[in-house]
Amino acid sequence: MNDLLQIIGDRGRALVDWRRPRRPSGRALGELADLLLSVPGEASGVARARELLDGYRALDYAGRTSFFRLLVETYSADRSDLGGAAARFLEDPSEVNAKAILRSAEPRRLELFRRLNFAPGGTADLVAMRLDLLERLPNHPEFWTLDDDLKTLFQSWFNRGFLLLRRIDWQTSAAVLEKIIKYEAVHAIHDWDDLRRRIDLPDRRLYAFFHPRLGDDPLIFVEVALTGDIPSAIQPILDRDRTPIEPGAATTAVFYSISNCQKGLQGISFGNFLIKQVVEDLQREFRDLKTFVTLSPVPGFAGWLERERSAEVSSVLPAETRPVLDRLDEDGWWQDAAARDELSRVLPQVAAWYLTRARDRRGRLADPVARFHLGNGARLERVNFAGDLSPKALRTAHGMMVNYLYRLPDIEKNHEAFVNDRKVAASSAVTKLARGLPAPKALVPSDA
Amino acid sequence: MNDLLQIIGDRGRALVDWRRPRRPSGRALGELADLLLSVPGEASGVARARELLDGYRALDYAGRTSFFRLLVETYSADRSDLGGAAARFLEDPSEVNAKAILRSAEPRRLELFRRLNFAPGGTADLVAMRLDLLERLPNHPEFWTLDDDLKTLFQSWFNRGFLLLRRIDWQTSAAVLEKIIKYEAVHAIHDWDDLRRRIDLPDRRLYAFFHPRLGDDPLIFVEVALTGDIPSAIQPILDRDRTPIEPGAATTAVFYSISNCQKGLQGISFGNFLIKQVVEDLQREFRDLKTFVTLSPVPGFAGWLERERSAEVSSVLPAETRPVLDRLDEDGWWQDAAARDELSRVLPQVAAWYLTRARDRRGRLADPVARFHLGNGARLERVNFAGDLSPKALRTAHGMMVNYLYRLPDIEKNHEAFVNDRKVAASSAVTKLARGLPAPKALVPSDA
Amino acid sequence: MNDLLQIIGDRGRALVDWRRPRRPSGRALGELADLLLSVPGEASGVARARELLDGYRALDYAGRTSFFRLLVETYSADRSDLGGAAARFLEDPSEVNAKAILRSAEPRRLELFRRLNFAPGGTADLVAMRLDLLERLPNHPEFWTLDDDLKTLFQSWFNRGFLLLRRIDWQTSAAVLEKIIKYEAVHAIHDWDDLRRRIDLPDRRLYAFFHPRLGDDPLIFVEVALTGDIPSAIQPILDRDRTPIEPGAATTAVFYSISNCQKGLQGISFGNFLIKQVVEDLQREFRDLKTFVTLSPVPGFAGWLERERSAEVSSVLPAETRPVLDRLDEDGWWQDAAARDELSRVLPQVAAWYLTRARDRRGRLADPVARFHLGNGARLERVNFAGDLSPKALRTAHGMMVNYLYRLPDIEKNHEAFVNDRKVAASSAVTKLARGLPAPKALVPSDA
Amino acid sequence: MNDLLQIIGDRGRALVDWRRPRRPSGRALGELADLLLSVPGEASGVARARELLDGYRALDYAGRTSFFRLLVETYSADRSDLGGAAARFLEDPSEVNAKAILRSAEPRRLELFRRLNFAPGGTADLVAMRLDLLERLPNHPEFWTLDDDLKTLFQSWFNRGFLLLRRIDWQTSAAVLEKIIKYEAVHAIHDWDDLRRRIDLPDRRLYAFFHPRLGDDPLIFVEVALTGDIPSAIQPILDRDRTPIEPGAATTAVFYSISNCQKGLQGISFGNFLIKQVVEDLQREFRDLKTFVTLSPVPGFAGWLERERSAEVSSVLPAETRPVLDRLDEDGWWQDAAARDELSRVLPQVAAWYLTRARDRRGRLADPVARFHLGNGARLERVNFAGDLSPKALRTAHGMMVNYLYRLPDIEKNHEAFVNDRKVAASSAVTKLARGLPAPKALVPSDA
Repeated sequence: MNDLLQIIGDRGRALVDWRRPRRPSGRALGELADLLLSVPGEASGVARARELLDGYRALDYAGRTSFFRLLVETYSADRSDLGGAAARFLEDPSEVNAKAILRSAEPRRLELFRRLNFAPGGTADLVAMRLDLLERLPNHPEFWTLDDDLKTLFQSWFNRGFLLLRRIDWQTSAAVLEKIIKYEAVHAIHDWDDLRRRIDLPDRRLYAFFHPRLGDDPLIFVEVALTGDIPSAIQPILDRDRTPIEPGAATTAVFYSISNCQKGLQGISFGNFLIKQVVEDLQREFRDLKTFVTLSPVPGFAGWLERERSAEVSSVLPAETRPVLDRLDEDGWWQDAAARDELSRVLPQVAAWYLTRARDRRGRLADPVARFHLGNGARLERVNFAGDLSPKALRTAHGMMVNYLYRLPDIEKNHEAFVNDRKVAASSAVTKLARGLPAPKALVPSDA
Repeated sequence: MNDLLQIIGDRGRALVDWRRPRRPSGRALGELADLLLSVPGEASGVARARELLDGYRALDYAGRTSFFRLLVETYSADRSDLGGAAARFLEDPSEVNAKAILRSAEPRRLELFRRLNFAPGGTADLVAMRLDLLERLPNHPEFWTLDDDLKTLFQSWFNRGFLLLRRIDWQTSAAVLEKIIKYEAVHAIHDWDDLRRRIDLPDRRLYAFFHPRLGDDPLIFVEVALTGDIPSAIQPILDRDRTPIEPGAATTAVFYSISNCQKGLQGISFGNFLIKQVVEDLQREFRDLKTFVTLSPVPGFAGWLERERSAEVSSVLPAETRPVLDRLDEDGWWQDAAARDELSRVLPQVAAWYLTRARDRRGRLADPVARFHLGNGARLERVNFAGDLSPKALRTAHGMMVNYLYRLPDIEKNHEAFVNDRKVAASSAVTKLARGLPAPKALVPSDA
Repeated sequence: MNDLLQIIGDRGRALVDWRRPRRPSGRALGELADLLLSVPGEASGVARARELLDGYRALDYAGRTSFFRLLVETYSADRSDLGGAAARFLEDPSEVNAKAILRSAEPRRLELFRRLNFAPGGTADLVAMRLDLLERLPNHPEFWTLDDDLKTLFQSWFNRGFLLLRRIDWQTSAAVLEKIIKYEAVHAIHDWDDLRRRIDLPDRRLYAFFHPRLGDDPLIFVEVALTGDIPSAIQPILDRDRTPIEPGAATTAVFYSISNCQKGLQGISFGNFLIKQVVEDLQREFRDLKTFVTLSPVPGFAGWLERERSAEVSSVLPAETRPVLDRLDEDGWWQDAAARDELSRVLPQVAAWYLTRARDRRGRLADPVARFHLGNGARLERVNFAGDLSPKALRTAHGMMVNYLYRLPDIEKNHEAFVNDRKVAASSAVTKLARGLPAPKALVPSDA
Repeated sequence: MNDLLQIIGDRGRALVDWRRPRRPSGRALGELADLLLSVPGEASGVARARELLDGYRALDYAGRTSFFRLLVETYSADRSDLGGAAARFLEDPSEVNAKAILRSAEPRRLELFRRLNFAPGGTADLVAMRLDLLERLPNHPEFWTLDDDLKTLFQSWFNRGFLLLRRIDWQTSAAVLEKIIKYEAVHAIHDWDDLRRRIDLPDRRLYAFFHPRLGDDPLIFVEVALTGDIPSAIQPILDRDRTPIEPGAATTAVFYSISNCQKGLQGISFGNFLIKQVVEDLQREFRDLKTFVTLSPVPGFAGWLERERSAEVSSVLPAETRPVLDRLDEDGWWQDAAARDELSRVLPQVAAWYLTRARDRRGRLADPVARFHLGNGARLERVNFAGDLSPKALRTAHGMMVNYLYRLPDIEKNHEAFVNDRKVAASSAVTKLARGLPAPKALVPSDA
């Protein structure tokens, strides 16, 4: 090992050239990793971390997989150390022995990741590395422990306290704006003019969280429309020819699009903080704003409904709704006045049922967007028939949209009830709609 | 608990007023801490964290001690959970069981600290909290585990990757500059004119590390003089009437003062990164710079020498040096030409011995400044008699100063040899000086 | 007057509302102008200036014309004062009397414009006002004196010393970038991707002059390509699929597009300063850059050639070139190999003649772009056949392009020779080409 | 000339070295000036302007005087041109001929100054040049015309529209702050702690005007105290141990110090704009602020009173006041309760008379500070006995201070009355005080 160290030390920058031709294998990176871990407080760690990350980047798909395997196999906690510590603790459960266990239980790769972060741009590289990892997880379930480590690390580094809220507008640099265009995941931004309509009109806002280490790359952003009432459809919001209103005259702030930007930060939650902060900032700026509400998609609805309809016996759908729901199979039903009329009486009931009662195998609310907003303490305020007639929304939600209402005084109560008692906060209108369908018998394992 | 939650939720900002009169006890804060920990993904954590930190600040000395006791007693890892996990691991040392141990072993207060960091200004408050803790450690050794947790946390948050290097000059805001004046710990900055001479002359530089979350408050800084040779005394560097040199003509960069700013970050090391980075930046700016060297104090020398001289038998000091060293006891010896002459022949030898061989009980090099620079990979280049005749330097080092040399190609090798083999890198001149004294027989337990 | 003042003073902001419905006539603004001029050092001038400028904006086309007429008729120098001062000076040509003339000769509107500039945004409004004026000049030649005053004022305010050079890149705000897209006058920027290729590739640069008072609105900008040689055609420069080169390896900086942005600043010259400054900045950044050259259009060529060809006798075009030049009348001649081949032997000669010898009625070089670069001290280096086959360039220049070379040591000499002796600096190749055509006999009045 | 041009052109940067040893005479600079003027649109003017300004700086006192003489003698308007233009205008007073006069009457040095401004830092150099000029004016009254030109130029360049208001606080750079310390002209700032008390306490503000071209060098600044009532003495404002008040609770903003920074801009007025702008900004920030008032010195009072007292017959001072006023001659009268008591009944009357009625030879109000604030439209609200017992204030004003009140609705009216009718706006209390003294008979030539 010392010899290798010598070589690297002597050749200095030569290393960079060496790396390029030979395309390092996962194993060679392991040697670099050993070096990086070997010498505790060493300043040259910055250069070495950069080296290892560049080496990682130069690997192909298989090479990266090998590197992950190496991390799992070689950089876990030392089992015999940990066994010893566990035995000592069982004998004498003192604080000293408890701490000794903690130390022995920490996988060595965690310290490796911390040192890789020394490198300029290291954080971004590690976030990208987790993305590579997530892609491999389905085929390599044994990598779960590595993913667990990266997630733990990111939860510490991307602590709410380190995030910066910035308003994005037409004064923002093109470098940031093009990322907004790229990351928008709900209602696609078609071009720079479309973007401009969302950030440079007096009644439109866009806010994003940034992390000091990721520079111009946002973590998450939310788009806001200031309006005179709670909207029931997205097209008027996005309409390119609409006339903006005076923002001081608005009574309602509509969160009509929330997009996570960094797939490598999956599972690290920022959205609740973002919404809460934006609500506070808007309230300070516009005293007449009274209502904070979303206009949200229902991404799981069509899939769920298809399963219910294809089930021999559905505990949810009354027999008399079946023929009406069959009209959904007709091409362009939304342009047929009769179909639209019939469905408008049934679909909202079914959607209300789905949103408030349907649960997945783990007993969680089935719709991920509902889960997010209700988990944040919002209330399910209204379901909107034909709220979004774009192909994507027709395909995934038969055009349904939902308003979730954020009432600050109720947020904590709602959140508690949702987390602790699995109670869904919903307006009486929505509750009534859902009751229009017969109560299910035993739809999901543990549903009340 | 839920009731209390209700109360707090309802009363909202009222809480703030409630806190002021009643001066919360450590216990009451514990209830707030429970609340903060109780509800996982909750955005209102920001306000609650602020509340708890404000409550903490309002506590008096005893109150804070109680709070620390609470954290130690109540927010440690659950012993029975940990015991169970340890037993399961011993039975089946799988990765799943290893990770379960890790999870059970983490003290609950770590998560509490992470949530306190949600609050605006939370990081600074937590650093201040550790300072309170460090003050109590001597009388409350049982708090060690709490200190261990905070240190772990800070090591993650103050990772080199998150630090920003900034040059401090006369364009810097007064808010930052007054902190530099306050934090300078080696050669006190007397007033703004003194500061100006250190940052606003062409041959002087000051660089500091900042953390995005601590704003204008620096972590550590280094003062640099650009010179034509390696200086042997500090007064010419600080002289108020000296003529600056053209920086482009300098061959040598002298690090003549390094100060840590945040006592609450004790034990988190930045200095090595700072020096290395500044060397790189200076090299890029001034191509003719060849030598990077410190002019450093020897803070432990006088204390160590006093102990040696008062020992009945010193294994270090030859008998013939005793009468010469006794002249150090004469008031104003440095103004007496004869005393100065005699001492100038002996003191450097003794200092060289002290710096290269004297070790503390834990076997570490005795002088903390030597330990820092040698640990960074520098070489002990020269000892300077009468290098600093200020009262403080006379008292702590009999006026001796030292140059440590940073040669980039040797740093890694020196560092390795120091850490692994406890070898001290020294110039031949210094080595020779140290040999002028007889080798000690068995000065410290394990010294070679 | 005092009464009116009173009314305005009392009603304060009411004025604003009053202005909107009644659409102020030019005459009413005249009263505001009197007020603005009436009270010398008065701070309320800021509000009053804003009022007048808002009033002006609210005027329709005829209203603005009336306002200009008012300025010309009523706010000129007082003729009888000036007559008195002139008479006194003729009697006693002292410095006092000379200065008195200067004072009497200044039109009162100049002071009015200075006070209008007090208003926030006043400078931009005055620049816009001159644009209105320039539109009316052809039909109202009597407004020339007003234009002369605004130009004098702008020459003082837009002094080179007050301009800021900024590099425009992908970090620049969208608000600035969209102006670049809008103002590009030579090679249209089609969309944001096209813009990006001009500012966000390593071998492309864009620099603009800004004025502190006009904020994000540029005055003029130049687009630069770093290349390995002097280009002879524009398409390879703008090619969307080209591979960028390493800028450090470039030997040549090509100014391939220069656009003035503010029509209201017509006649105020910035371009020469911009090019000179950019040359200096690029030289500092890239030491291997040796050649600074333009790739320029020849906007007047086709028009001039048409006149020559349609003239019964051309003193320029030899009879034998006529049939070849007639091929230019064929649709798509540039796609016909034969036509292209024939023309490639004649057109460059004719263009070289045009660029170096053709003059307008005022005796100035006929081509405005040639006039600009040669007036700046550049040398006409090369004429390029089929340099730009875009419809616009085919229409205005039969596809010809030109390189003007900026050699710093020659700039002053060339400039002098051009201004004082009307000598055109041209490479020997171009000179030779031009000589391929017979010297004209008496083409323009005073041509040598 | 052309030869010289050649030499300079060829030698390029050599010029700089050449200038240093030989210390250019005013005459040599004249040649540079000719060059600068000779070539109209030339970009190399930037370098040449820098050269001339550097040359000017290198001149000694006599050299600069020679340069000014040169400018007066050689760069005035051409008398014979002007004579011709004047004659033509008298014959035919057309707009064309009027404009021709204007052009001929402009001294050539004005264009020279405009070109000198091309140089980096040119504006600051020209402001410094005027300072040199002002110093020479008393001995060289013939330079008045040059001063007149520079003033005209600066009035255009330092137009209100180009000034930037910035709040100065503890976040401001030391480079700016040290200038504030240096420029404070009313109540000296003793050190950085004193400065800090004026900018870093919640109830203290400091605002300054900057010009984009002068960078960090302010033009004028005003210090503001937020208080609960109109203060009658300065010491409580400056007291180092006072307790700040909550700024939101303040009812009154006190302008207690206004300092012009640039002597070279003498006669260009910014103060009125500054006060008005600060009033507006404070009103927007603190809605409860009702009163805007100064606490001002009376710099001409003691001098004026001495003249009155030493006059054989004073038309102002009633005989019975004489013995009381004689007590002012006693050392330390303000520490003698009896003297203080007596004077407190007479001095305010005399001061009120002085401030409202005493006029200088040109018929202007005698006190310059009164002239400034009353000219801005303020009202003389109160005279304060023993308002400032510092040595300077005792020497110049026998300790008197004054409050001028800025009431926005009255400012315009007051200003008009003052400028047009020479009416002094004063509170009834001050008016009454002034009447306590007999009306003067014929104090100044034209006083009503």
